[in-house]
Amino acid sequence: MKVLIVYAHPEPESLNGTLKDFAVEVLKKEGHSVKVSDLYAMHFKAALDGEDFPDRTDKEKLVIPKEQMNAYEKGTFSPDIAEEIEKVKWADTIIFQFPIWWSSCPAILKGWFDRVFAQGFVVDLGKGRLFDKGFLAGKKALISVTVGSPKELYTKYGINGDLEVHLMTLWHSTLEFTGIENYDIFYIFSASSMDDKRVKSELERFEKVLKNLK
Amino acid sequence: MKVLIVYAHPEPESLNGTLKDFAVEVLKKEGHSVKVSDLYAMHFKAALDGEDFPDRTDKEKLVIPKEQMNAYEKGTFSPDIAEEIEKVKWADTIIFQFPIWWSSCPAILKGWFDRVFAQGFVVDLGKGRLFDKGFLAGKKALISVTVGSPKELYTKYGINGDLEVHLMTLWHSTLEFTGIENYDIFYIFSASSMDDKRVKSELERFEKVLKNLK
Repeated sequence: MKVLIVYAHPEPESLNGTLKDFAVEVLKKEGHSVKVSDLYAMHFKAALDGEDFPDRTDKEKLVIPKEQMNAYEKGTFSPDIAEEIEKVKWADTIIFQFPIWWSSCPAILKGWFDRVFAQGFVVDLGKGRLFDKGFLAGKKALISVTVGSPKELYTKYGINGDLEVHLMTLWHSTLEFTGIENYDIFYIFSASSMDDKRVKSELERFEKVLKNLK
Repeated sequence: MKVLIVYAHPEPESLNGTLKDFAVEVLKKEGHSVKVSDLYAMHFKAALDGEDFPDRTDKEKLVIPKEQMNAYEKGTFSPDIAEEIEKVKWADTIIFQFPIWWSSCPAILKGWFDRVFAQGFVVDLGKGRLFDKGFLAGKKALISVTVGSPKELYTKYGINGDLEVHLMTLWHSTLEFTGIENYDIFYIFSASSMDDKRVKSELERFEKVLKNLK
């Protein structure tokens, strides 16, 4: 199986960095091919703007869906986007590894979706190519997150509301929207107070999830 | 009243650009003081990283909450963050003007929250300073968004689910989390197919909202 890991944390020694390294190791041992998009290490540009389209159809006014459709059709995206598109095409499964910041993903990962999940590549709204007819149908995704707070703050009646509902924006309106099927989200709560023993037990739990990907 | 408009769109001629300019004009006419953070024009850095903390307590490993608390206490944030913090402190009301991308805000605005809404400045989790005890209590916010799709796609049983639920991540878990009180969200749906007549009627509707801010 071909697995792309999209990883977003500025600190390699973080728990997220550990989880990313661990996933690479386990997946390779299982015989899978693995590529990693380490967004911070790549200095991935987060903000979608006119520079994403070096060969714009309209140089006066940036109309994003139009330029995305055109750039995808003609193969004229900026090289950083084109590379990520190739990785997504290559992958059977994509793992998103990131910390929950403000009940959501870090900006650099949001920017990856804004820029790489371009209209024309992942969906075609005009032609009804979305959800089960989306262009990424057949691929799967695993969202793997660390949460500083304890789980109680993110239950249905917790002070933040249900984290699965917050993440619906990602697993439903983004990933399923393009045809991708999700594995159950892998959560590590209370991540701001980990000791070695708990890191070990969480890695064991993560290993089982990774070995069950297919 | 002092109003900060945080605006995130790469195209000045976009509907969002028009709404931002219109808000400045209406609010000034009403006698308010207005500041604008035009995130794209400012080339605002979206990705939170070690550069945000020029005077790190731990140069080996970046532990974000610790560095944010320290930088806020000592006044050692990078200048771009320090400036935004001053604007937020100054403001009675903050208007967030942005397009809905992937059922959420553009990455550059997510990055503004990741970096500017720093622990120590907006909340202190250890001391229970959040929600009604959050440091931004007393301030108000208006979320004003444009949505390419028609409203039917963003109702409770629409294909994307309820947009107000997606935006809970922002209005509840981010803004209310810091003590900020929200006005009703201002939505413009079907924004990808606007004619001059509808722009005019939407601006009239927006004008009423702006005049009711207090």
